[in-house]
Amino acid sequence: MRKILVIGAGKSSSYLIKYFLDKSDSEELHIAIGDINIDNAKKLLGDHPNSEAIHLDIFNSEARSKAIASADIVVSMLPARFHIEVARDCIRHKKHMVTASYVSKEMQELNDEAESNELIFMNEIGVDPGIDHMSAMQVIDRIRDNGGKMILFESFTGGLVAPESDNNLWNYKFTWNPRNVVVAGQGGAAKFLQENQFKYIPYHRLFRRTEFLEIEGYGRFEAYANRDSLKYQHVYGLDHAKTLYRGTMRRVGFSRAWNVFVQLGMTDDSYIIEDSINMSYRDFVNSFLPYSPTDSVELKFRHALKLDQDDLIWDKFLELDLFNPNKKVGLEAATPAQILQKILMDSWTLSANDKDMIVMYHKFGYEKDGNKHQIDATMVVLGEDQTYTAMSKTVGLPVAIATLDILNGKIVTPGVQIPITKEVYSPILKELESYGVSFKEKEVPYLGYNPLNL
Amino acid sequence: MRKILVIGAGKSSSYLIKYFLDKSDSEELHIAIGDINIDNAKKLLGDHPNSEAIHLDIFNSEARSKAIASADIVVSMLPARFHIEVARDCIRHKKHMVTASYVSKEMQELNDEAESNELIFMNEIGVDPGIDHMSAMQVIDRIRDNGGKMILFESFTGGLVAPESDNNLWNYKFTWNPRNVVVAGQGGAAKFLQENQFKYIPYHRLFRRTEFLEIEGYGRFEAYANRDSLKYQHVYGLDHAKTLYRGTMRRVGFSRAWNVFVQLGMTDDSYIIEDSINMSYRDFVNSFLPYSPTDSVELKFRHALKLDQDDLIWDKFLELDLFNPNKKVGLEAATPAQILQKILMDSWTLSANDKDMIVMYHKFGYEKDGNKHQIDATMVVLGEDQTYTAMSKTVGLPVAIATLDILNGKIVTPGVQIPITKEVYSPILKELESYGVSFKEKEVPYLGYNPLNL
Repeated sequence: MRKILVIGAGKSSSYLIKYFLDKSDSEELHIAIGDINIDNAKKLLGDHPNSEAIHLDIFNSEARSKAIASADIVVSMLPARFHIEVARDCIRHKKHMVTASYVSKEMQELNDEAESNELIFMNEIGVDPGIDHMSAMQVIDRIRDNGGKMILFESFTGGLVAPESDNNLWNYKFTWNPRNVVVAGQGGAAKFLQENQFKYIPYHRLFRRTEFLEIEGYGRFEAYANRDSLKYQHVYGLDHAKTLYRGTMRRVGFSRAWNVFVQLGMTDDSYIIEDSINMSYRDFVNSFLPYSPTDSVELKFRHALKLDQDDLIWDKFLELDLFNPNKKVGLEAATPAQILQKILMDSWTLSANDKDMIVMYHKFGYEKDGNKHQIDATMVVLGEDQTYTAMSKTVGLPVAIATLDILNGKIVTPGVQIPITKEVYSPILKELESYGVSFKEKEVPYLGYNPLNL
Repeated sequence: MRKILVIGAGKSSSYLIKYFLDKSDSEELHIAIGDINIDNAKKLLGDHPNSEAIHLDIFNSEARSKAIASADIVVSMLPARFHIEVARDCIRHKKHMVTASYVSKEMQELNDEAESNELIFMNEIGVDPGIDHMSAMQVIDRIRDNGGKMILFESFTGGLVAPESDNNLWNYKFTWNPRNVVVAGQGGAAKFLQENQFKYIPYHRLFRRTEFLEIEGYGRFEAYANRDSLKYQHVYGLDHAKTLYRGTMRRVGFSRAWNVFVQLGMTDDSYIIEDSINMSYRDFVNSFLPYSPTDSVELKFRHALKLDQDDLIWDKFLELDLFNPNKKVGLEAATPAQILQKILMDSWTLSANDKDMIVMYHKFGYEKDGNKHQIDATMVVLGEDQTYTAMSKTVGLPVAIATLDILNGKIVTPGVQIPITKEVYSPILKELESYGVSFKEKEVPYLGYNPLNL
């Protein structure tokens, strides 16, 4: 039996564990799940004979080291900031390691040691980052192998609610960490490249500079720019691309309404609102509007945001019960972002039968034989229920498949890495297909942002 | 002879030094100006017999200590971050100290030592902070002494160009550090109190939430909120005031136009613009606007900001030559804020004959005998030339007067302090009056923000 140690059994571990268990007989696997709270692990493992849930406090370095020493490979599903101690133990005990998180500076610094010990430290192998890397590089490599020259790459991902559960006016529910949604886009201007021009969008304009996307069978979406679209320019080999844009997908209309919160200052997480615990939802809204002894919060809100009487956006705010003078915030010393999150969670929390959806959209523009071409590739993954979500599927399956591919010697190149080489993405994307995680490609006319070539 | 050591002979020292020299015979003063560059000091001192310019590197602790040891009182006109080493030497050598800067945490920590050594460490005694504290507390104390109860305090200050030199469409020139003007208002939401309601304005709304003020003989001004209007609530004894607001004054129309820069993201100082050195002014503007192969930067700008064809604001941007494709930024690795500053300095730098102006406006609302009253107090100070500016007068004179009042035993209470007690503000405001730095008070009907008392 090969021993796989999975550290952390949170929301995104369900598919990962199911995959391992399903393969455990044929692949001779023993799966140990270590967590400080093993209830969820036990639930996910059932009484499968090839598995065990072990109580593990990752801050207990002795216990952590012992668990890692006894495994053949380690999967860390911990929050990103906790990976590094696991990684150092993996170096010490000469174990491969897999995470779905961005490569931190500290992780990157382990590269030489990983290489000299012939260890594979695979990171960014969830959905975004993860499936985006692999699916993009597969097409980019193919275009290049066929003699094409990449001139445009745009990539969009969204974690949304499945159409069958999409029953509110925002066409949105929290399918992942609500906090990340509330503060999304903060921390600096978005930067991208269009037709060789660098473009910058400050946070307070981000949600009004969206573009539309259509996915066959799923209708229209919109996307706002991610903070750094140029992050992977070099590693993807796109140094000469004229257009690079990465974005986050929402259903049409979401961003314009979200921008209202941004404009008012409700997404700010940097200061505490006075007496937040006793405030009503209405008081909260009013604290961002000018004082008036007579004018209603509603009219001040409309006036501040220049919302016409007949603007349908209004119903979105009513749906959230934003002007309710009786609902209390009830949070002590809370920031605007924390209060807004509380209000949104009343409306946007998934019901027991709700399903989620992951959408991804890539555009590849290239020149070949003097002509310009474009390939659009789209992926839609639907959740099954609230345990086997699309999010846990698209995050967990690539992690699980990579783990097995490392154990089986399909992935052999050592070092701290992300899944951008053929050796890595080919077997993983192939296996993902059999689980319904696949892209539809179609050739479309290349337009770029300068269709008349002026 | 009493020896006064002034450390730092920058822009704001001219009036300070003139005041000391004029009083040096009658008050038996010897003035030493220590600076690393003594050219300006020499120019300001001339060949006055009661003075000397001494070369002083404040990072040379031996030289610094020696200079301080030989003085009777020390005035630090250094940038705020350098005061603390001077202050520690003052404790060591038992010297009083005066600065125009905000009390830092480190400075406050010296309070006990200053008190036990009977030393006066007077801070925040320039114009803002400084004259604002003194003039406000004089009226507040008077209202209280007469049995009134403060319910509203609003205070506004502006450093502007004098009417006779006010010849651009923004009615603004840089009369002080341009950088501070470009990044003004950043770093968190503005917070204030109106009729017992806490109000918050995010940076990107700040310049559209102005209010108007009128000063007799000088016309209309507008003011945007400072970041923390509640900072002095407690020290001013205004714990029960219903309305507290502090703001910065500009000429009418400035803020709405400035807001265009804020909206586009041009005041951001947190990231570097690609290839800023080779960029034209037009390129810079274009980098914040959507790409188009055909549409003009001008029309994209109008569209993004919703500026109508006949909006007079347009001329303000033309005046700055913002759309010039030939003028180069010429700054390496510059932030948007640095580039904007460069562009503005082309237009807003004072000419040789230009004069500056300091305006201040306080509103005091109070209840007495069941009735509500209001006193408005305004101050206007005009500069004489580019050496004897209104800024150097209003910063330097209170510092100089306080210094002499300490030497003469008019100010006696020891400790790290700001000028909010009668002992301090009474003699200083009186002396300032003889230099034309005075407030006009008038009784006005109390309106507050709830005039109908609903």
